[in-house]
Amino acid sequence: AFTPLLAAPTLEDVRSTALNSDEIAYDIVEGLTTEIGPRQGGTEAEARARAWSVAKLKSLGFDNVRIEEYQMPTWVRGEETAEIVAPFTQKLAVTALGNSGSTGDKGLEAEIVYFPTLEDLRSAPDGSLKGKIAFVSHSMMRTQDGSSYGAFGPARFVGPNIAAKKGAAAIVIRSAGTDYHRNPHTGNTNFDAGVTPIPAGALSIPDAENLERMLKRGKPVVMKLKLTPKNVGMHVSGNVLAEVKGSNPQLPIIVIACHLDSWDLGTGAIDDAAGCGIIAAAAKHLKTLGQPKRTVRLLWAGAEEVGIWGGKDYGSKHAAEPHALAMESDFGAGKVWAVDFTLPESASEQKAKIIAALAPLGVVPRKTPASGGADIGAIIAAQKLGIIDLQQDGTKYFDLHHTPDDTLDKIDKAEMRQNVAAWVSTLAIVANYEGQLKP
Amino acid sequence: AFTPLLAAPTLEDVRSTALNSDEIAYDIVEGLTTEIGPRQGGTEAEARARAWSVAKLKSLGFDNVRIEEYQMPTWVRGEETAEIVAPFTQKLAVTALGNSGSTGDKGLEAEIVYFPTLEDLRSAPDGSLKGKIAFVSHSMMRTQDGSSYGAFGPARFVGPNIAAKKGAAAIVIRSAGTDYHRNPHTGNTNFDAGVTPIPAGALSIPDAENLERMLKRGKPVVMKLKLTPKNVGMHVSGNVLAEVKGSNPQLPIIVIACHLDSWDLGTGAIDDAAGCGIIAAAAKHLKTLGQPKRTVRLLWAGAEEVGIWGGKDYGSKHAAEPHALAMESDFGAGKVWAVDFTLPESASEQKAKIIAALAPLGVVPRKTPASGGADIGAIIAAQKLGIIDLQQDGTKYFDLHHTPDDTLDKIDKAEMRQNVAAWVSTLAIVANYEGQLKP
Ligand SMILES: [Zn+2]
Ligand SMILES: [Zn+2]
Ligand SMILES: [Zn+2]
Ligand SMILES: [Zn+2]
Repeated sequence: AFTPLLAAPTLEDVRSTALNSDEIAYDIVEGLTTEIGPRQGGTEAEARARAWSVAKLKSLGFDNVRIEEYQMPTWVRGEETAEIVAPFTQKLAVTALGNSGSTGDKGLEAEIVYFPTLEDLRSAPDGSLKGKIAFVSHSMMRTQDGSSYGAFGPARFVGPNIAAKKGAAAIVIRSAGTDYHRNPHTGNTNFDAGVTPIPAGALSIPDAENLERMLKRGKPVVMKLKLTPKNVGMHVSGNVLAEVKGSNPQLPIIVIACHLDSWDLGTGAIDDAAGCGIIAAAAKHLKTLGQPKRTVRLLWAGAEEVGIWGGKDYGSKHAAEPHALAMESDFGAGKVWAVDFTLPESASEQKAKIIAALAPLGVVPRKTPASGGADIGAIIAAQKLGIIDLQQDGTKYFDLHHTPDDTLDKIDKAEMRQNVAAWVSTLAIVANYEGQLKP
Repeated sequence: AFTPLLAAPTLEDVRSTALNSDEIAYDIVEGLTTEIGPRQGGTEAEARARAWSVAKLKSLGFDNVRIEEYQMPTWVRGEETAEIVAPFTQKLAVTALGNSGSTGDKGLEAEIVYFPTLEDLRSAPDGSLKGKIAFVSHSMMRTQDGSSYGAFGPARFVGPNIAAKKGAAAIVIRSAGTDYHRNPHTGNTNFDAGVTPIPAGALSIPDAENLERMLKRGKPVVMKLKLTPKNVGMHVSGNVLAEVKGSNPQLPIIVIACHLDSWDLGTGAIDDAAGCGIIAAAAKHLKTLGQPKRTVRLLWAGAEEVGIWGGKDYGSKHAAEPHALAMESDFGAGKVWAVDFTLPESASEQKAKIIAALAPLGVVPRKTPASGGADIGAIIAAQKLGIIDLQQDGTKYFDLHHTPDDTLDKIDKAEMRQNVAAWVSTLAIVANYEGQLKP
């Protein structure tokens, strides 16, 4: 009998397998959204998600699958209603922002003061908002690279703190989103030390525009707002780690990250089960090329949404362990369209190899330096790591981001497979390169 | 000084004005959604909507603007939550169907029995659902003519009654809709006399599909359901009527209808402020052609959603008053794409004129007989009226129908103007035709 000698699979073979037939990434998103659902940092649901993840990563054959726990202060949503009571009466769809204060069970009723933009709120005289509800609007456009979030997200990130300092009783913002559904976008806000958190909510975009139309009619508009979130003290959260062990334990490792927690409103499909699916699938396909030289570590971080607790914990616990490069997937499951690098000059040949490996997937190399993501921020800062960003198309991301609509049906399997193909192509090159990766 | 003799406007002029610059229809939808919002039949909000409508129709210069009140039994929504408690735990987005029974404040917890279609539920043996929650799914496709609602709507219309008769403790259905948002579709259901209403809810489509995935995993699935709607007895509702008086009071009148009430979840923009805006704008533009021969009466019907109370009241109060023709607009604000007729053979020349007047708007004549709509059903039945249906494109209608997402931003002004143009073209012909219109 004649047994043909099978050629070892090439990078091209693995990229093609991932692109055409990966099931691992989708299976992970399907499992997390169906069997766990929402999994906010610090809650019991996040603990169930960690247990689920350990079982899944072990069944995929990864090495050193484990949980690293930490404690974190936990904020949980309560009731949330908003109603215009004068000059018209109508309920509006609202959700509390993370770290929002409470109105108390009776709610509060106050006149709306309208700020078309965050800059207008910044310009309001101190004390001018005493007893009022500030309403900050804006108009966030779709952008492929997500830059509109940087421009309009601050209404959420810092608007409540500014309004609180100016004496506002509460604040509502137009959701940082690009859709037209009655599903407000939550997300964290932060108050300076010494500033008492005021109730802070996001209106859905149709509701924010309705409120603008009411204000345009020129009469004082009064809102009754009820938000009753609570700080429930310190709770356990944790990171889930897993590895593809490298053949040379002397080489600094590569860490690839996503976050396991999600906001409580949706089931966290695009944010960020997708990222966890993509990186795990890519690491699994990587193994079909044989053992890589460097260890590739998966970090499925905990409690990102509510303060990047997992990423910070990883950065401090692993500060002394040599890392070379960090990558993160946390922008949905849209196609990778661009690649950015922060690598040393000496790695320019490797960079060219990556660009060539990504070209068949339609990926554009850019001159923007790679900056990483939230969960790898601490370890990058601690060790000045190399970074590669596989930039995803975010055109539709802010339709869904932090809303109840972040569900499995929003995942395009073919686009997610393209992500897996881009990731495994990149990992195959960097994990087998023994030279310097730190810039 | 020379004063040019202005030619009287033609049908073409009026059609063109409506198509290119109508503001009346949008203004009505904007006003109702902003100043009133949800306006369920029998509620105080519907009463505010009637007062608003009287003022608006008077300001537009219509004749005989008035309210005709009636009493109706009123059902109101309570709390509504659904949670899977085994083998996984996760909340699902649910809303009660109109006429649903209550679970009581403690809710009920029971195993799900899955029926992929309504036919499967019909086939379940009597008593087999004792103590269980029936879950009826289906897969409703987009259709331009709305025929999918006729095919899959029965899961809502009669599913709860069938489940109640088979002993189910409750029923949840996959919403009768075509979107993928976490906004369930409400709508009335009906129980036979002598059948005690069971709690009956609709899950959003992402939630229904999530529940199907849970069931596919093969373990018993248990839901905790809480729906606490109430029947609050008899309340006042009413129709708003207005007219363009005809020059020949001997001629039977034309009635054109929409409904003023809306479901409580959205602001009733496409269902059916749009219809009220379209018919009022068309009637207003009609007047620029001079006084029509026949009186054209606007019927802004009350309480359609919750049992067609306004349409029935109109039919009985006006049964003795001679009518010739009825038309209705209650399918959103998408373009008119087809026209159907139920007219006598003797009116075939008028029919041809209408087809010619609609052709520049892209409207297709069909052989399907016109059947009218809910609010004109009673008067048509009482007097065997002529009917013309200006069929709207419903491709996107069931993304929004009876959900919180039915808001002003969903109105395409250009498409709504095309409706106004089609309506005024049709009215200009039938309101000035003195011959028989009854088939
Ligand atoms: Zn994220
Ligand atoms: Zn996020
Ligand atoms: Zn309707
Ligand atoms: Zn309706």
